Amino acid sequence: MDWEERYADRMGWVRSLEIMDLIRLMSQRPLINFAAGLPDPAGFPVEALKDAADEVLTDDWRSALQYSEPEGYRPLRDWVAADLTRRGVPTSTDQVLIVSGSQQGIDLVARAFLQPGSVLLTEDPTYLSALPIFRSFGVEMSPLAMDDGGLDPDAAGAAMRQPGVKLLYTMANHHNPSGTTLSDDRRRPLLEHAAETGVPILVDEAYLDLRYEPGEPAPLAAAAPEIPILTVGTFSKTVAPAMRVAWLAGPAPVIERIGILKQLTDLHANPFTQRVVHRFLSAGHLPAQVDRLRSLYRGKRDVFLRALERNFGGRATWSRPAGGMFLMLRLPPEQSGTALLEKALEHGVAYVPGSLFYPSGDGENTMRLCFVSASAADIDEGVARLAQVVWS
Amino acid sequence: MDWEERYADRMGWVRSLEIMDLIRLMSQRPLINFAAGLPDPAGFPVEALKDAADEVLTDDWRSALQYSEPEGYRPLRDWVAADLTRRGVPTSTDQVLIVSGSQQGIDLVARAFLQPGSVLLTEDPTYLSALPIFRSFGVEMSPLAMDDGGLDPDAAGAAMRQPGVKLLYTMANHHNPSGTTLSDDRRRPLLEHAAETGVPILVDEAYLDLRYEPGEPAPLAAAAPEIPILTVGTFSKTVAPAMRVAWLAGPAPVIERIGILKQLTDLHANPFTQRVVHRFLSAGHLPAQVDRLRSLYRGKRDVFLRALERNFGGRATWSRPAGGMFLMLRLPPEQSGTALLEKALEHGVAYVPGSLFYPSGDGENTMRLCFVSASAADIDEGVARLAQVVWS
Repeated sequence: MDWEERYADRMGWVRSLEIMDLIRLMSQRPLINFAAGLPDPAGFPVEALKDAADEVLTDDWRSALQYSEPEGYRPLRDWVAADLTRRGVPTSTDQVLIVSGSQQGIDLVARAFLQPGSVLLTEDPTYLSALPIFRSFGVEMSPLAMDDGGLDPDAAGAAMRQPGVKLLYTMANHHNPSGTTLSDDRRRPLLEHAAETGVPILVDEAYLDLRYEPGEPAPLAAAAPEIPILTVGTFSKTVAPAMRVAWLAGPAPVIERIGILKQLTDLHANPFTQRVVHRFLSAGHLPAQVDRLRSLYRGKRDVFLRALERNFGGRATWSRPAGGMFLMLRLPPEQSGTALLEKALEHGVAYVPGSLFYPSGDGENTMRLCFVSASAADIDEGVARLAQVVWS
Repeated sequence: MDWEERYADRMGWVRSLEIMDLIRLMSQRPLINFAAGLPDPAGFPVEALKDAADEVLTDDWRSALQYSEPEGYRPLRDWVAADLTRRGVPTSTDQVLIVSGSQQGIDLVARAFLQPGSVLLTEDPTYLSALPIFRSFGVEMSPLAMDDGGLDPDAAGAAMRQPGVKLLYTMANHHNPSGTTLSDDRRRPLLEHAAETGVPILVDEAYLDLRYEPGEPAPLAAAAPEIPILTVGTFSKTVAPAMRVAWLAGPAPVIERIGILKQLTDLHANPFTQRVVHRFLSAGHLPAQVDRLRSLYRGKRDVFLRALERNFGGRATWSRPAGGMFLMLRLPPEQSGTALLEKALEHGVAYVPGSLFYPSGDGENTMRLCFVSASAADIDEGVARLAQVVWS
């Protein structure tokens, strides 16, 4: 009985990233892991979450253990709406859908808008794990070049006017992997192109709060609140990934429609962990938690930048991200991040070849390095090993 | 900016059940709710879950709050594999994928096997919330009639031989809504038809453990362990729905492939609640918990059956389920479960019109009644109100 031939056509577009499988396999032995985008457990607010879980299971267990509303726990939706409003994006509760991680938010939006023949606009590079989602819907990917200020809104606007364009996916703040933040002066023009062409924008604000330089970046949607776009945000980076609590916000009728899709997909996000996150938030823990993460990750970023300077100074370049969790190392053009990976793994250090993030196929000479997971000592050692791998 | 016209074609097949919306709306005022399939909170093992959550966040928080393996928490997969093996379905860990509720298991299988033009075989009636999943993939539904012993395996075999058939979805034990269990003598013939035709079977074992009569029903797969089928099972009914921990088991290559699909959909099931459920299981709580639920729900079923006898005896018929959470009330043919709903809601009692469960459109004179949610007093009162609605 060969089920392989029984699959729907779309399964031909469902692929795992083999290199990620290799990294995962190798990661079973001890190595210094700059590959995975794992928050540092030292930043987990474990005591506050333990208290919140205990409280929820003490005084709200009848609801917290039961089936729940498909749109998500209403007080949490209220909180997200109020928070977006405070950040310059006037939002009502019916404009917020709770999803099981931003990965699901992206998948639901893709499922709602994309089909074979659709053209998807995305930054080049872009979030690695969004690419298999888009590919699974059989779309054509149209990559938009970036510079230190993010994408060029007029180039994006011209691309939006191409036939078949169904969605633009962007990460406006503390971009993964490039580390860039879209310049303020590019924001309104980008949104105006969306309004003129009617192309929906999905902005991924996963790293919005993780900022290590002065200034508070605003959600992209705040640049022109009268222009409807879809925003996906998450508590994975600020509270804990395992809560699987994220949100999608946008025009109420679209949120309602995607909410119906969400409901048939998995009924609703986790009612228990939604309540745990909501307790955490309403106890007022978030601002101190964000401060703590900023301080922790800023320190690690600086250790990483100094290690790069020591080991790669004058021989390679790298991004200096103002936020997020990643930086990109650019080697001389004759080097290949893909080709060097196996040797690096043998030397006990892992990264992700940068080319995987480029729908265009560019970036062969780059490596994406997560700077928040490893300890300071491991960062020093890991970067030294990387240099040995590259230069020996 | 009209996003309605921007949706992918498949969104034309994504519909909410309007009647369910009505019930939900009405349920905001107090009523006796026989509609929702909600486990009785009195059956939640809240103290054991509280202990498990506390333990996990005390000694395993670094992993329990982090991103995790896409296939699921390995000790939990081991447990499911061992449990299936013990029940007569030899299963290895790589044949088990942890999913976020059985709803997601069904959606993932549908996404893997169904596309416009596919024919889906399903019992008539079948699980209400599976129907919008199948419909969302643009399939043609081919309903299979049932009797007290479940579906007819030879009729199913003949249907499997029709062109375009891509999947058979069945609930072999304690069927929702009919309450039937597939007769032992029909099981192997059904699986042999699958083996001969190559049509994958997805069996939904959500209610396997909820049995109130003598005998332990086996998973369908145990009837012919050499014939590969897909089984979806869940801890929602035995532990708590809000854990969102369920599993899909089947041939290893198919599980691996669907695991890749699962990963792009939402990365992985909830790492925290997977560990909470695993602690609960490995502490040995499940057998006593299942006994407790059986006793609780058996009592409610019997109260419900007596109330029906008092109020509907001689004027209607109903199922006498040996397990599960639901029974079906069959009114005289001139009555309509759909037409009576609004009046019932006005009288403060909710049910789901049975016709919604029938892909064939049959069942107009039926009502699905959940017998586990309401208290004994509310069951008596609710059934009396129903009789008033029907007979006055």
